[in-house]
Amino acid sequence: MKIRVTVWGENVHEHKNERVKSVYPRGMHAHIAEALTKDGDITARTATLDQPEHGLTDAVLAETDVLTWWGHAAHGKVEDAIVDKVQARVLQGMGLIVLHSGHFSKIFKRMLGTSCALTWREQGEKERLWVCNPGHPIAKGIPPSFVIPHEEMYGEPFGIPDGEVVFLSWFEGGEAFRSGVCFNRGAGKIFYFRPGHETYPTYHQAEVQKVLVNAVKWAMPMGQKWENPSAAPKVVPSLETIRTEDPAHGQSAGGTGLK
Amino acid sequence: MKIRVTVWGENVHEHKNERVKSVYPRGMHAHIAEALTKDGDITARTATLDQPEHGLTDAVLAETDVLTWWGHAAHGKVEDAIVDKVQARVLQGMGLIVLHSGHFSKIFKRMLGTSCALTWREQGEKERLWVCNPGHPIAKGIPPSFVIPHEEMYGEPFGIPDGEVVFLSWFEGGEAFRSGVCFNRGAGKIFYFRPGHETYPTYHQAEVQKVLVNAVKWAMPMGQKWENPSAAPKVVPSLETIRTEDPAHGQSAGGTGLK
Amino acid sequence: MKIRVTVWGENVHEHKNERVKSVYPRGMHAHIAEALTKDGDITARTATLDQPEHGLTDAVLAETDVLTWWGHAAHGKVEDAIVDKVQARVLQGMGLIVLHSGHFSKIFKRMLGTSCALTWREQGEKERLWVCNPGHPIAKGIPPSFVIPHEEMYGEPFGIPDGEVVFLSWFEGGEAFRSGVCFNRGAGKIFYFRPGHETYPTYHQAEVQKVLVNAVKWAMPMGQKWENPSAAPKVVPSLETIRTEDPAHGQSAGGTGLK
Amino acid sequence: MKIRVTVWGENVHEHKNERVKSVYPRGMHAHIAEALTKDGDITARTATLDQPEHGLTDAVLAETDVLTWWGHAAHGKVEDAIVDKVQARVLQGMGLIVLHSGHFSKIFKRMLGTSCALTWREQGEKERLWVCNPGHPIAKGIPPSFVIPHEEMYGEPFGIPDGEVVFLSWFEGGEAFRSGVCFNRGAGKIFYFRPGHETYPTYHQAEVQKVLVNAVKWAMPMGQKWENPSAAPKVVPSLETIRTEDPAHGQSAGGTGLK
Repeated sequence: MKIRVTVWGENVHEHKNERVKSVYPRGMHAHIAEALTKDGDITARTATLDQPEHGLTDAVLAETDVLTWWGHAAHGKVEDAIVDKVQARVLQGMGLIVLHSGHFSKIFKRMLGTSCALTWREQGEKERLWVCNPGHPIAKGIPPSFVIPHEEMYGEPFGIPDGEVVFLSWFEGGEAFRSGVCFNRGAGKIFYFRPGHETYPTYHQAEVQKVLVNAVKWAMPMGQKWENPSAAPKVVPSLETIRTEDPAHGQSAGGTGLK
Repeated sequence: MKIRVTVWGENVHEHKNERVKSVYPRGMHAHIAEALTKDGDITARTATLDQPEHGLTDAVLAETDVLTWWGHAAHGKVEDAIVDKVQARVLQGMGLIVLHSGHFSKIFKRMLGTSCALTWREQGEKERLWVCNPGHPIAKGIPPSFVIPHEEMYGEPFGIPDGEVVFLSWFEGGEAFRSGVCFNRGAGKIFYFRPGHETYPTYHQAEVQKVLVNAVKWAMPMGQKWENPSAAPKVVPSLETIRTEDPAHGQSAGGTGLK
Repeated sequence: MKIRVTVWGENVHEHKNERVKSVYPRGMHAHIAEALTKDGDITARTATLDQPEHGLTDAVLAETDVLTWWGHAAHGKVEDAIVDKVQARVLQGMGLIVLHSGHFSKIFKRMLGTSCALTWREQGEKERLWVCNPGHPIAKGIPPSFVIPHEEMYGEPFGIPDGEVVFLSWFEGGEAFRSGVCFNRGAGKIFYFRPGHETYPTYHQAEVQKVLVNAVKWAMPMGQKWENPSAAPKVVPSLETIRTEDPAHGQSAGGTGLK
Repeated sequence: MKIRVTVWGENVHEHKNERVKSVYPRGMHAHIAEALTKDGDITARTATLDQPEHGLTDAVLAETDVLTWWGHAAHGKVEDAIVDKVQARVLQGMGLIVLHSGHFSKIFKRMLGTSCALTWREQGEKERLWVCNPGHPIAKGIPPSFVIPHEEMYGEPFGIPDGEVVFLSWFEGGEAFRSGVCFNRGAGKIFYFRPGHETYPTYHQAEVQKVLVNAVKWAMPMGQKWENPSAAPKVVPSLETIRTEDPAHGQSAGGTGLK
């Protein structure tokens, strides 16, 4: 069975900025989905902010193995209830790939618990990405380094917890950045990939598309679904005989029922 | 200068449960604060749910090096605005020590991004804690293992990200658990310590008090304050000359101002 | 193509201890290999200490996707030159699964850099393993907990670096232990699994066999081979023009050739 | 009491290369030791390859809180027996700071278990270091970025396990690198710091000296000494009564004595 990807796109710049429209005529989300489906093992659908439930209904999330997320101008417009559902699905095992300005999305900050802040400069400078681990699945088929001719710069400090660093970026303007980082949260795998400013054709570039395909294959659930990661069940009776007498309840097992 | 600790207590059970009142007559928070201040390097104040801003005003947080958190019955009553402030302070460098049922507190779930769920049983059984790293600062002066005669059981799966495991627990009823785990988030250090059910005199026990003192010393900020971890400053002009012409903006640096 | 596993066995106890011989008539290595091959996606061969190069020739290692390692009585008899080769292959991407008393093998200590020590007791007591992450690939199909009726006890402190903890063990005699831990080293994945004392039929147990099969599928290389992880190539000329004049060598790039 | 640092220097280039001699007239080790002792909390001695036991006798190691290591031309001449002793001390809690070309030292590769390889270019180019976590103790008092006018380049892939990344480097020639990384091994803390090529006055630079002082204070043991991390004691009798009968030994606890 193919890996079922849902490509989420904010889909705002595409309607306000002529340049973005010219680079991604059908929207960044549609373009990314098409790039992914060029791989025979992947099937991709799209979802956008303007759709009901932002296109992320229970049914869609239930059928999604990996969710990719690109947002920038409207992070605040994403409903918390949807963020709750996406977080729950990641903890169950759904992969999450956060792209570029998605670093400031509610879902990325929610999953990591940190600021996810960084420094930036939008000047179309040259970016060069370096592979930190040539044997990592996400680096499969990627050369030791590759150049993106024009990109927005992101710089350190990047407010994330420690993760597995797969790519570093070098910027013409003088910065270095952790551009590809992996995290495990619950049963889900999360990958942040830095490139992808809306005004440049980054997602048209072969190496970038290859990284996205690799990331999807890395992030897809390999284990079983963690059905209810938020459950806090009371375990009574115990598996082993408890001989200690409970000074609070006596031998009859108690339980506040608060959980 | 002494380490300034604020001991946060939900302070609910103490007023509803005669047994808790008898074990902690002045409240768990007051008892823990007294235990900490027995160490010459620590000064501790308390804060509780029923106080304005739950006792965690900007002034209090600004003067807190390490915050300890015990809650259980009223996690939902903690205002999100206060959780926001505590999270911001941790990212700036304030240490956070989460105790027992605080695993389900808003602040712990916020900082880790996972469910923080576990299994439990309240039967006053025997718990034995094992030290996983005798050289860890939090294990200083703690024997290879020690017993808490009566405790609530917590069992795996514990819904947390990977961290540095300092203690494991063995329970009479048959479970094992990661009872002491360290995390770094932003400039702050976080330690979760499992024991401390309200109906048992756990915080009266010498080894437990020693762990709390050690944890405070470990979690206190050793670096400088990260003044504004959530800032995303635009870095213009660049430190190095950018020779690449920006197809989107030409030589004049752009910036969407969205951040 | 099937996953090619080489099951390495010390094969000493089987010839000296009647009980071990009765539990594993054809040797522990042969038994484990047979258990793995019951899975349609795996093909397994064996290698033992007494063979030339301990059965781990360059050809065998080159054709091995995942190596499992069980040793106990003769760790010191494993030639360092072979350990060097195995380490090199792991860094290239070969998976390594270290079993039970293999915690003290040269290869495990080599890969982790720590003592890998632990406490132990050989009394045939009950062990119960708990799953810490139900969604982890290695826990696929494993119940929340399962019992091994008779096992040797291993206790903390376990001298390993932090890793991803997948299983914890509870022992009848009072100990708890990190029984399943994952590590990444170079392009290779390493999994340590605690159970498997030679005098008990642990590897006959369905849950244990399932964990081994899962571990093989988790550890198999998913990325490309890291051809030469120990290479330290001189990168001349540089990708970007270096305008700074070298006070040590002038504009002509130098190089000590020491690497 | 002051932090007792031993600064280990290979002390080879200083005698063969006029330029190195002119930059570090009394040797790199002596210069680094002097820089550290300018901090009131630190006392430093030196040790070199040409001394008996490379200057790292049991007595010296016993009195060392933090060891710094710089080597390049003669890694192979360091005796394995001394490496064994240094590793044992780190596992007991001694801090280890590995400098620049020390990435290929026996002790660094021993502690990490990986290749520790990287790419390099010796052309005196500009290096800029970026702080990834302004609140980290090792970054205390360090600006967001600083430049080293002339350095050897080190590039990815850097063959190390995942660690806590404190600094990234940007190189004029086009590379980026993880230049400051923290690891925990046993009771010891390890920090790798990239800069410090022998032909440039890197260790004369204020920011670099500040990082070294910070690293010493971060790496000093904060917990108790782990007396014997390699011990594997037999734990008999058990703390809890074992009711299960041992099919291998009967009720009398056995033990192979192999450990």
